[in-house]
This record gives sequence, C-alpha cells and structure tokens, in this order.
Amino acid sequence: MKQATVGEARLRVRYAETDKLGVVYHANYIVWLEVGRVELLRQLGFRYRDLETVEDCHIAVVDVKCRYKSPAYYDDEIVIRTRLANIKGPLMHFTYEVVREEDGVLLAEAETTHIVVDSKMQKTSLPEKYMNAFRRAAGLHVEDKD
Amino acid sequence: MKQATVGEARLRVRYAETDKLGVVYHANYIVWLEVGRVELLRQLGFRYRDLETVEDCHIAVVDVKCRYKSPAYYDDEIVIRTRLANIKGPLMHFTYEVVREEDGVLLAEAETTHIVVDSKMQKTSLPEKYMNAFRRAAGLHVEDKD
Amino acid sequence: MKQATVGEARLRVRYAETDKLGVVYHANYIVWLEVGRVELLRQLGFRYRDLETVEDCHIAVVDVKCRYKSPAYYDDEIVIRTRLANIKGPLMHFTYEVVREEDGVLLAEAETTHIVVDSKMQKTSLPEKYMNAFRRAAGLHVEDKD
Amino acid sequence: MKQATVGEARLRVRYAETDKLGVVYHANYIVWLEVGRVELLRQLGFRYRDLETVEDCHIAVVDVKCRYKSPAYYDDEIVIRTRLANIKGPLMHFTYEVVREEDGVLLAEAETTHIVVDSKMQKTSLPEKYMNAFRRAAGLHVEDKD
Repeated sequence: MKQATVGEARLRVRYAETDKLGVVYHANYIVWLEVGRVELLRQLGFRYRDLETVEDCHIAVVDVKCRYKSPAYYDDEIVIRTRLANIKGPLMHFTYEVVREEDGVLLAEAETTHIVVDSKMQKTSLPEKYMNAFRRAAGLHVEDKD
Repeated sequence: MKQATVGEARLRVRYAETDKLGVVYHANYIVWLEVGRVELLRQLGFRYRDLETVEDCHIAVVDVKCRYKSPAYYDDEIVIRTRLANIKGPLMHFTYEVVREEDGVLLAEAETTHIVVDSKMQKTSLPEKYMNAFRRAAGLHVEDKD
Repeated sequence: MKQATVGEARLRVRYAETDKLGVVYHANYIVWLEVGRVELLRQLGFRYRDLETVEDCHIAVVDVKCRYKSPAYYDDEIVIRTRLANIKGPLMHFTYEVVREEDGVLLAEAETTHIVVDSKMQKTSLPEKYMNAFRRAAGLHVEDKD
Repeated sequence: MKQATVGEARLRVRYAETDKLGVVYHANYIVWLEVGRVELLRQLGFRYRDLETVEDCHIAVVDVKCRYKSPAYYDDEIVIRTRLANIKGPLMHFTYEVVREEDGVLLAEAETTHIVVDSKMQKTSLPEKYMNAFRRAAGLHVEDKD
C-alpha cells in the first residue's frame, strides 16, 4: 500500500487568535485544520473553491477530534501537516499534525470526518476525477481505465 | 422631530473574544455592533433573517467607525445601545454605544453605514413596510396613507 | 450514584458565525462549549473569572471531540447543556449537547477534557471549595468533614 | 518630505471568514489590518512580539475606520498595504489598502489610531530605537546624534 500524500500549510499566529491566558485559543486550531485540508487539495491540483462552485460539492464536517499537546504563542509560525487517511463513498477522513516551525514541537494532533453534500446539505458523490485523485492521495488503489 | 428608538442588546464576553493583553480583542466589537443592529430590528418587530430570506434584502456594511474608550474584560456583561440614525433610499446609518453593564462605563462608540443589496450584491430597496417602520425608528416623518 | 448537574446556556447565532454554505461554521461550536462550561460553573455558584484571578487556576483544554448532527442556522436560539462528567485530580471531563431551542433538534454532541494549570501553564490543583462543589456537580461522592 | 514605507502582507481568505451572504464577513478585515501592521513592523526589522515581551509596550487600538469598496470571496489571495502615516508621542496612526491579488481590485481602505500602553494599560513611550525607526518609516525627520 502506498503512503498518503502529506499536505503542508503554513500560517502565522494572529493576535486575534490568542486569549487572556497568553496562548492560542483552542477553537482556532479547528480553523487551522480547514486551512490544512484546503492546501492539501491545492497540492493535489484542485481548488476547493471550484469543487463548491463548479461541482456543487461541499465537504461538510461531521466529526472533529483534537488533542492539544503544547501551547502555541502569538507570532509563532505554524505548520499543518494534513493527510487524507481514507475516502469511502461520500465519507472522507483526514488526520493532522500541527507543529511549531521554529522548534518542531508538536502542538496538536487531530482527525476529522466529512461527508460530501450539495448546497441543499443532501449527501452527494464526488466527481470521478476528484475521487480518483483523492484515492491516490490517500494511498488507495485506483483502477486505471483504458 | 421625534427621538430615534434605542435598541438594547446584551451579551457576555467570551474567553474566545479576549486576547493576550487580557482584554477584548478590538475586532470583536464590530461583531457586537451587528448583534446590536439585529436586536434593534427585533424590537421593531422584524427578524433580519426574514428580511434576507423572504425579501432577499441584505444590509451590507459599507463603512465602520469605532472609537475605543475603555477596555472590556472577560465575563463582563455588555450592553449595546443601537440607534438607526438615518435612512435614505438604500442607505442606512446606525450609531452605537457599547457599555459595561456592571459599572455603566462607556467602552466604545461606533457608527456604521449600510447599503441594501440583493443576494447578487446589487443595490435594491427595502419593502415599504420595513421602510416605514425604519423611518419611524429613526425618528423621521412617515406619511400615513389612507 | 447521583445524577450530574446539567448547566443550561443560551445564545443566538450571530451572522459572523455563519459561513458561505449558509450554516454555522463548525469551529464556532467549540467556542459555544466554553460558554456552556462557564454557565455550568455560574449555576454552581462560581465565576470562572474568579477562579483565574483569585486562585490562579485555569482550566486548559487538552482534548475536544465534537460530532455534528444537524446544521445550525443564522439567528437560531441555541441551548448548550453541559455536564461535568468526571473530575479526578487535575483532570476534568465535560460532556455537552447542543440543541436548537425552537424545535429541540440535537445539533451536536461533544466532550472535552481539561487540565487545571496555573498562569505559567504548570499543572496545579483546584482549591478544596471548588473541588467539593465540582465533585457534587459531577454526581460524585464528597466526604463531609465535621 | 520622504515617502512612508509600505508594508505588504499577504493572506488567503479562510472558509471561517466567510458568511452566509457568500462574502468575507466585514469584521475580519479589522483582523487583517493587524496582520498588516505586524508585517510592516517585521519589514522594519522588529517583531511586535518582542516589543510586547522585552519592552512591555503594547500598541492598543483607540480608533478604527474602514470603508468597504468591493466584497472579498473565499480563497481570494489578499494583499494588505500598510503605512505608518504619523507617530507623535504615544500616538501612532496607520493607513491601509486591502486589495485582491488576482485582479488588483481595491476591497477596502482603512485607518487606525493607536496608543502605546504598558501591560497595565497605562500610557507609555516607545524605546528610542523603535521611535527612530518608526519615524523614518513614517517619512518623518529623525535627528541623528553623533
């Protein structure tokens, strides 16, 4: 079995993302995971914007798990490493590592499950070109037609 | 000329809204102004939700001014006093006072200008029943038809 | 064994909390959970603000799990039901139900784990008066001294 | 008189920053202005983080004005051009242009006024090395001592 593609997204902690304890407020990591997913898709040659606009496919979140390991601080440069761990029918499963660039410290580990829906929030399927690329990115077997 | 109606909205400062300086991050006040506008509308008997859904009218922000007077702290109860200062064609102008409930300290003064648009972001007009109610709320003269 | 106390917090969905899919952006639920925790504490007679300021105890998040069941919409009134499921040493475990007030639909279920730290992010213990009240709220046995 | 230095910060619109109208929610621009200020400082050779940590100087916002010209959309690449327009005693005045990278459309113009405070929110002065660099960045005359 092939390895899953690892997306790498980078961002810098904004003042707005800190809280009175002097660290990044925990809900902001969940926003960062979305940045991670979108950049993984971009690395695979897709814009999530197009998936929504052109195909009316939306990757809605059904489950989020996040374990916080070490606090992130204002102005830290953050790396989000995202893998598409599995894709099966309308379900997609991503895993994430959130790391501080400067010292490589693991700040959080997370996983999210998604379902593909249309703009009326009804379950739908990804177009085949996406499905094949996503299966490859997940390290899954793709049947080549010829 | 009649006095403008004063809307009163209340909210409590969330931990997420504080920053590493230990006070409310300034951009959150701009979100609170929106809470103030919506509650003023509710006091006038309208749901902004219906204005969007039923009438396809959206009150888009074109200008924001906010003067910060005193910091707000975590768990403070906040009162937002909102007035519709003027309404003319598609333009609406609101003014705000943001006050801490406990000691009455003025935290911020603000004003916003809005334009009524449809969901395609094109300029449009408010339905007459809204327009009349809003003009009354602004203390402006409304011609009664009979 | 006694039942855990159920905290009830209410809030109304802000425009700022929606996203381009027309529903509440999922990370905002994580902020709402915090509102739920703080209101549970208030029902128990404590202000989380005081716990931080007076006792230098901070309830840092170490783990979040959230399952999204049904979308929340703009202007929905939301009820967050929060239980302190367990407390053991410096660890606290909360569970949540996020419900739409109008139709009682369950929007999300969540659980969070926390560790009590001081302002230097070092593990610490809750003062006894908090510990006893929290154990009672969790439906756990508390030894009365006399 | 010399020209003010122009800071350039770039960011990509996050899904979390959009609202149900399908555009960027207006309060998020105020967060972007902060990103602009911090990157201007970085171009001048300073980390705002150090100004806070080492010098206990915090650039608190006292006034924000923002005029929205054109909507920003999900996944747009945004450029924030920031100028230090003036600095006088503890007061700093910044101006901003927020532009979409792809087509160069001006999305918003803004200005903010700030006051330098210590961590107790008391007015204070910038250290001289900052003051001189900031005056140069603002295109103001700086007396060289020798």
